[in-house]
Amino acid sequence: MDTWNAINTVRVVRRFSDEPITEEQLARILDAARRTGSSKNEQAWAFIVVRDRDHLRELAAVGTYAGHLAGATVAVALVTPNPATTSQTWDMGRAAQSMVLAAWELEIGSVPATVYDHALAARLLGLPDDRRCDYLLSFGHPADASKLTAPNRRGGRVALADLVHEERW
Amino acid sequence: MDTWNAINTVRVVRRFSDEPITEEQLARILDAARRTGSSKNEQAWAFIVVRDRDHLRELAAVGTYAGHLAGATVAVALVTPNPATTSQTWDMGRAAQSMVLAAWELEIGSVPATVYDHALAARLLGLPDDRRCDYLLSFGHPADASKLTAPNRRGGRVALADLVHEERW
Repeated sequence: MDTWNAINTVRVVRRFSDEPITEEQLARILDAARRTGSSKNEQAWAFIVVRDRDHLRELAAVGTYAGHLAGATVAVALVTPNPATTSQTWDMGRAAQSMVLAAWELEIGSVPATVYDHALAARLLGLPDDRRCDYLLSFGHPADASKLTAPNRRGGRVALADLVHEERW
Repeated sequence: MDTWNAINTVRVVRRFSDEPITEEQLARILDAARRTGSSKNEQAWAFIVVRDRDHLRELAAVGTYAGHLAGATVAVALVTPNPATTSQTWDMGRAAQSMVLAAWELEIGSVPATVYDHALAARLLGLPDDRRCDYLLSFGHPADASKLTAPNRRGGRVALADLVHEERW
């Protein structure tokens, strides 16, 4: 899948089929994060792969909208230093997008979960005090395979003309 | 260029040739940001396109490592609400990576600039008080075209085994 096509067609997938993610596919998704550029090449990131169903169900309680984690084929917890600098958060966003796009090319959908209960996330993930998890990503093949080819929803995004300024605000 | 190839081969480009970026190419790069998923589909982002050479030279003073902006074919200032939440910063990182990858497929290189002097950036970009710019991206065709096909530098990234944990930290 060419790069623009992946960027333009990727959509959020919250429900996943039983089709497994192979070790090779998972390695590529993680490698997509690893390959991403970071501020001063700091690479201040780490990733916790969660596949155990009970563990995934527990993690689904870390946020108000994190329920999809319970049904993920694989979840990846994105771990930064604690506290995280703006650059570390921004870098992690870049790495997350690389993962989302690499997965989509493999017909694997994803959706982020925002952590609301940081203490619970830290406990479930066994994080030391100097690490935090603000986001996890659920991955899996879509339960509804038509998601892979669905056209963009009209009105799903603000028009470019409303987002872009020339030279000055 | 397939998606994985873009993710795996993209590299930072700091020096740019005189080859122009067409309006169509620029529109695609900006649209890559626009198409990116955001927390609660908030799309709390805006983009200022800077092409005027004098303006680019002024912007090169916003950060210690922002000198590349002076020679950018086009720079895009990434604008968030002020203050920016963690999610808004993370979302912008995702949008930036979409732009970087979309550009790379078009043989356009890029490099981020981190803003150190926020007051100067706000003045040069004409930002209202409720907006801030933490990053800009320089874009252009590489001055050294071999950058487009250069192999990955050995040792440029931490090994996957050192970044990835299973189930718990």
